[in-house]
Amino acid sequence: MALAHKGLDADIVPWRFTETDRLAFAGTDKVPVLVDGDRVVHDSTAIAEYLDEAYPNAPALFHGDPAPRRFVLAWTNAVLHPALVRLIVSDIPPLLDDKARAYFIQNREARFGMTLAQVTADRDTQLGPFRTLLAPLRQVVAGQDYVGGDEPDYADYAVFGAFQWARCTSPFRLLEEADPVFAWRERMLDLFGGLARDVPAFEV
Amino acid sequence: MALAHKGLDADIVPWRFTETDRLAFAGTDKVPVLVDGDRVVHDSTAIAEYLDEAYPNAPALFHGDPAPRRFVLAWTNAVLHPALVRLIVSDIPPLLDDKARAYFIQNREARFGMTLAQVTADRDTQLGPFRTLLAPLRQVVAGQDYVGGDEPDYADYAVFGAFQWARCTSPFRLLEEADPVFAWRERMLDLFGGLARDVPAFEV
Repeated sequence: MALAHKGLDADIVPWRFTETDRLAFAGTDKVPVLVDGDRVVHDSTAIAEYLDEAYPNAPALFHGDPAPRRFVLAWTNAVLHPALVRLIVSDIPPLLDDKARAYFIQNREARFGMTLAQVTADRDTQLGPFRTLLAPLRQVVAGQDYVGGDEPDYADYAVFGAFQWARCTSPFRLLEEADPVFAWRERMLDLFGGLARDVPAFEV
Repeated sequence: MALAHKGLDADIVPWRFTETDRLAFAGTDKVPVLVDGDRVVHDSTAIAEYLDEAYPNAPALFHGDPAPRRFVLAWTNAVLHPALVRLIVSDIPPLLDDKARAYFIQNREARFGMTLAQVTADRDTQLGPFRTLLAPLRQVVAGQDYVGGDEPDYADYAVFGAFQWARCTSPFRLLEEADPVFAWRERMLDLFGGLARDVPAFEV
């Protein structure tokens, strides 16, 4: 989404959880990694900041100052992602190949201290608290089209990334259609000719 | 804090909960209300936006665009304030005069459906979840001095306003000294020659 926002073409390279050797050149074991000529940048936010620096004439992701947008990113990492994981994590193993599945189950069960089926067992009752937790996002996108204002910016892509990940991995219905967050997610799915809508995903 | 940030002088008029008749001229029953010549503006954020429009040569509260900062404001309203109220509300009545106290207790007990003593009865056990809930703020101010970046902006004043209100009304200790949020609050208390530190408050 950030590359599309900047109008930049890129080769997208599929990658699996367990293929950490393929990322060693970048000094990380996590995606995303951006390779731009001689430059290698990892971490989504670092990549977005790099893109604004390296391509200042393309539409800005941060409008010159990442600092005031850090709160939305921190909320996405500290609040939204952990809450989403608890609702959908058990839907992920069936989508993985054998090696990735074994790694994923072992790693995540150790993190939660229970089976993944147990993590999501009460997700129907957790849905109410999850929707309550979206209150700040809901207030914002009820009053303006995007988190960034009239146009989307990197804050939108960061928050949307969590929802897109859920949509690509789980059929569990997170949002009611009447929720302003649902309408915002639809707007995000429509961006760039339906870039995010057109990947294999569940209709949620 | 917003007026000090803009370098504007103002007469600060004390006001009590029950004195709604004194606000009728502004078409609201809530503070703050700003009177600037012929202009009357109410609601903190609306006032801050007005100040940036009316005094564009003074330091900016929003750096030209309130929209990307709305998320922090929404989080303050939807998450921080409700959580703070549950920790300190029973400390407020003793600070009020008779008329305001009667109004406050009746109004708030109706809202919570229990006595104010019951609301805060388990606040020692609620402190852990409260501190967890500050995670996005903590992440941000651990990495940069202010929510706004190297310098405070309106996002800082909005979040700080909640903590200042707590500090002025309750001796309940919300933050540990080792918490980056504590250090950020100290920085806020130091701004403008200790403007916020110098009001009657509890040492928390």
